[in-house]
Amino acid sequence: MSQKTVLTGDRPTGRLHLGHLVGSIQNRIKLQNEADKAFYMIADVQALTDNADNPLKVRSNVLEVALDNLACGVDPTKTTMFIQSQIPEIAELTIFFLNLVTLARLKRNPTVKDEMKQKGFGEDVPAGFLIYPVSQAADILFCKANIVPVGEDQKPMIEQTNEIVDDFNRIYGQTFDHVKHLVGDVGRLVGTDGNAKMSKSLNNCIYLSDSNEVIEEKVMQMYTDPTHIHVEDPGKVEGNAVFAYLDVFDPDTKGVAELKAQYEKGGLGDVVLKKRLVGVLHDVINPIRERREYLAQDPKKIMQILKEGTEEARRVAAKTLAEVKEAIKIHYF
Amino acid sequence: MSQKTVLTGDRPTGRLHLGHLVGSIQNRIKLQNEADKAFYMIADVQALTDNADNPLKVRSNVLEVALDNLACGVDPTKTTMFIQSQIPEIAELTIFFLNLVTLARLKRNPTVKDEMKQKGFGEDVPAGFLIYPVSQAADILFCKANIVPVGEDQKPMIEQTNEIVDDFNRIYGQTFDHVKHLVGDVGRLVGTDGNAKMSKSLNNCIYLSDSNEVIEEKVMQMYTDPTHIHVEDPGKVEGNAVFAYLDVFDPDTKGVAELKAQYEKGGLGDVVLKKRLVGVLHDVINPIRERREYLAQDPKKIMQILKEGTEEARRVAAKTLAEVKEAIKIHYF
Repeated sequence: MSQKTVLTGDRPTGRLHLGHLVGSIQNRIKLQNEADKAFYMIADVQALTDNADNPLKVRSNVLEVALDNLACGVDPTKTTMFIQSQIPEIAELTIFFLNLVTLARLKRNPTVKDEMKQKGFGEDVPAGFLIYPVSQAADILFCKANIVPVGEDQKPMIEQTNEIVDDFNRIYGQTFDHVKHLVGDVGRLVGTDGNAKMSKSLNNCIYLSDSNEVIEEKVMQMYTDPTHIHVEDPGKVEGNAVFAYLDVFDPDTKGVAELKAQYEKGGLGDVVLKKRLVGVLHDVINPIRERREYLAQDPKKIMQILKEGTEEARRVAAKTLAEVKEAIKIHYF
Repeated sequence: MSQKTVLTGDRPTGRLHLGHLVGSIQNRIKLQNEADKAFYMIADVQALTDNADNPLKVRSNVLEVALDNLACGVDPTKTTMFIQSQIPEIAELTIFFLNLVTLARLKRNPTVKDEMKQKGFGEDVPAGFLIYPVSQAADILFCKANIVPVGEDQKPMIEQTNEIVDDFNRIYGQTFDHVKHLVGDVGRLVGTDGNAKMSKSLNNCIYLSDSNEVIEEKVMQMYTDPTHIHVEDPGKVEGNAVFAYLDVFDPDTKGVAELKAQYEKGGLGDVVLKKRLVGVLHDVINPIRERREYLAQDPKKIMQILKEGTEEARRVAAKTLAEVKEAIKIHYF
């Protein structure tokens, strides 16, 4: 692999939270410094696959997720930030790729299967949702990304993309390279309720835009160890959300280790622990939120960043599509 | 309906035959004079849905079907002739429309169901093939066509399009009008073997580019009445392919009626009848083939016609997509 091209992205369906920060944004920032080229996509078209009847929600969150990423340190001089719907070439690639994938294969995709179950879709799944692994292949391949950091649960998407790469190259000649997935340092952050996933629909998130008061309130209600009732009771560290967060965010690892020992032995109250976490999270989120508030004062400038990124992405897309159309023999004029 | 906009098209998978002439081309020519706007699409992307592994077949037939249509009288000053794959907006619309259609609905489509059975597809149907009614809706709606002449068997495609129109308008606001299907004067021409459909795969076609010798050979082997063995035997007119063709192509309807009476009574041999049909078909096909041969001498000119038509179609497409993106709220810049 000579050139390292990274693609990452967010669905604009809500403000981003700490789960996004440790699961993808931190990794995105690291990668923008390591890769030869980095693309960041705001996946509004994908968001519409299960929000077709709520376009305003998608629309209004485009700016929000851009702000979240910029505030965390995504640097538009290093990362081409673009909006999916403004790249018609992605739609074109999707249509070509759809001929290379069977219905049976789509239904077998474990990620789609899980999500369909979660959302209660059966055969009434919107076709756009069912085929989204194919759209994702187009997202990745339009810019010839070869590194895509994803959660463990998204690995089947990359496998699907690589199958499409193989089929395309076999039929139309060598055009695309295989894509490597890359699982972040911390795959997933538990929710404030101890649930394995932080997710808006579970209402267990701490947002990057939450105020100090809201953070404090959320931490104070966090899941710890339900059997740890009195300060002197021994408590469990495993499965304790507060410790999970301290492990991720508290730079004083030695201090955290001592607290764990004390908690397990008994004599350490949840409130003390939570107050520590509040402080730690303030340190993490305050600079992000402040930068976010500053950037949010000039939304036109943010849209200008996205416009320029989108123009750059289109240039790349046009080049790929010209190659693809030549390979499929549908370059006529 | 104030403005009449017609869309017709061919899949570039082979030369066109008499079945196309009476089933669609004649109607297309009539409509280009009646409509306010007429579009003719060479559906190469659709042809790829079940010819993904044979792009050269699709590619080489683009020029062939253009020649067939021009030779028959499709007039590029009246009809915008364009190539589907060169209109990215059709792919974009397809992606948006896919969110409005469920998998169950696609599987219920009688046309797709029939064709899947014919082609032996089960769950292993290419996704691109399964969703082609949605692509067709995009073909129709990108240019806001409101009249689409189709065979009786294609009516479900128009119904699917109108469902998409309804859903789109309901969710995103009035954007598209309903589409009217229009069944041609002669819906379908039987094959030379008497089969209900003239079709390349059944090897029962007379092509618009067939030489006089080939036409004669094919007519002489045509299906008549297998019980009509001797000249003096009474013969059946119904189901007799030769009479079916005379009914369609012989301008001397009185003469044909007399022949029918004589055939049914007995005393009229198949050879006499077939010789008459050979003459009639020569009269139909000779001017088409001659014009076709003349046009085929300058393929660059044909491609130029398609290029200009495609540019015009793109202008129309860009206008529609701007409206659509505004309706879906994904117009940002």
